[in-house]
Amino acid sequence: MQKWLINTADANSIDANDRGLAYGDGLFETIAVRNSACRFLDAHLQRLQQSCKKLAIPAPDETRLIDNIRTLIADQDCEHGVIKIIVTRGTGPRGYGFKSESLAPTIMTGISATEPAKTNADGIRAQYCLTPASRNSSLAGMKTLNRLAQVMARSEWTDPQIAEGLMTDDRGNLVGGTMTNLFVVAAGELWTPPVTEFGVAGVMRSKILQIARDLKLKIKEDDFSLTFVNDADELFVSNSLIGIWPINSLNERSYPVGPVTHQLMEGLASQGVTECQL
Amino acid sequence: MQKWLINTADANSIDANDRGLAYGDGLFETIAVRNSACRFLDAHLQRLQQSCKKLAIPAPDETRLIDNIRTLIADQDCEHGVIKIIVTRGTGPRGYGFKSESLAPTIMTGISATEPAKTNADGIRAQYCLTPASRNSSLAGMKTLNRLAQVMARSEWTDPQIAEGLMTDDRGNLVGGTMTNLFVVAAGELWTPPVTEFGVAGVMRSKILQIARDLKLKIKEDDFSLTFVNDADELFVSNSLIGIWPINSLNERSYPVGPVTHQLMEGLASQGVTECQL
Repeated sequence: MQKWLINTADANSIDANDRGLAYGDGLFETIAVRNSACRFLDAHLQRLQQSCKKLAIPAPDETRLIDNIRTLIADQDCEHGVIKIIVTRGTGPRGYGFKSESLAPTIMTGISATEPAKTNADGIRAQYCLTPASRNSSLAGMKTLNRLAQVMARSEWTDPQIAEGLMTDDRGNLVGGTMTNLFVVAAGELWTPPVTEFGVAGVMRSKILQIARDLKLKIKEDDFSLTFVNDADELFVSNSLIGIWPINSLNERSYPVGPVTHQLMEGLASQGVTECQL
Repeated sequence: MQKWLINTADANSIDANDRGLAYGDGLFETIAVRNSACRFLDAHLQRLQQSCKKLAIPAPDETRLIDNIRTLIADQDCEHGVIKIIVTRGTGPRGYGFKSESLAPTIMTGISATEPAKTNADGIRAQYCLTPASRNSSLAGMKTLNRLAQVMARSEWTDPQIAEGLMTDDRGNLVGGTMTNLFVVAAGELWTPPVTEFGVAGVMRSKILQIARDLKLKIKEDDFSLTFVNDADELFVSNSLIGIWPINSLNERSYPVGPVTHQLMEGLASQGVTECQL
């Protein structure tokens, strides 16, 4: 990131004994800055609070966090960019065990300016990754600092034409993209992998599911295989920064950008996700 | 750690944009210092090199690493302690993708003095953990910075009488301890979970398996369940710092410290693992 506030102070480094580095013992959030404000901030902060609770990390004070975010946006005069929050369990001695009473979480808030992106109306190219997603029912759903599987999956291609890679689990079911949640439209139903064993309960994913419910679409949060994807009508991926990217080709197969994807993009656009404005 | 060398310089902090923190994008080694020298240093450096290769992180220069270790041990006048090496992919912009040519790995070497421990001849108490181990066939075997499952498993007990927790996989098979490899003796055979889907290919684990082969023990690197452990004759765990700890009780069940465990402890002791001297 271009600039960090670490525990309210300007800083560009963290303690070498931070447990976030040692063990990935922490969480993060990636939030879109649009028109100099954080998009869906409440949903991001809510997920952060809930995940902190699950990991027994004292949740950061929201008022101070929001203050930090405002300071960064103002200081950098940032109209369009990304806010990243990292919360670790803090700095401590070697060893997985910790004494909560002697640890103070490290709270990092960072900002980077980015260029506005055009709506991806024609869709993107994607490919399957060989690196599997990590199965863990205790950690699934949270945006923890343990992301090495995604890093290795992303390193499988260098072709700039390919915008995302899809990851599978140890049983051959789809889990999601390296940096996105995956949705499949098949026979009028909207399928997305559950986030109980793998993956992240994405903020954009939740918004999409809510719009789908409002549209009375049939939603299936259930496992599905590569064969199912091969026969699907529409495919798309989502995250907080991109909104929805339709997939127009996956390995050797082509997909249309279909009506359900369009409806959901319009639904997001009406909530301020300008990247989805058709 | 009490003191760090980071890329050859004295330092106590790392860049806030280090990928080791952001994604757990790196590896570590924990090495016993005994009589002011690193025990099994070659084996640790070899694992580090191999894991770096698998993760496409340029491996650190061994001569420089050994120089750093010697400097730390001399500087701290450390007779008995721990050397920790962390290698991350380096500092870079946000996003899982990376361009190797523009990244320089972060190489951290740290030292802490510790008190010598007595041989654990009578064994330890252990319990089962509810937090499952993370399944990932691409990352298994390596000591990556993604250790949140172990942290959460270790947080399941506070009773100081319990020295280790055993973790299972999503199918109910044993994977290992939170910080150790697990061995089970049953009907004269030495069983240990494979490290192809979970766990770390421990340096002490390799030494034990070599001694077992030399002793002509029947070795089974294969999955086994809780029921199998219940009916086992001997149980023990191992890591680089402790050598072998026999388990004398696991949840409500008691186990003797048996002849096979004794033989293997003697084998380690003869290789300089003084913690195993009976």
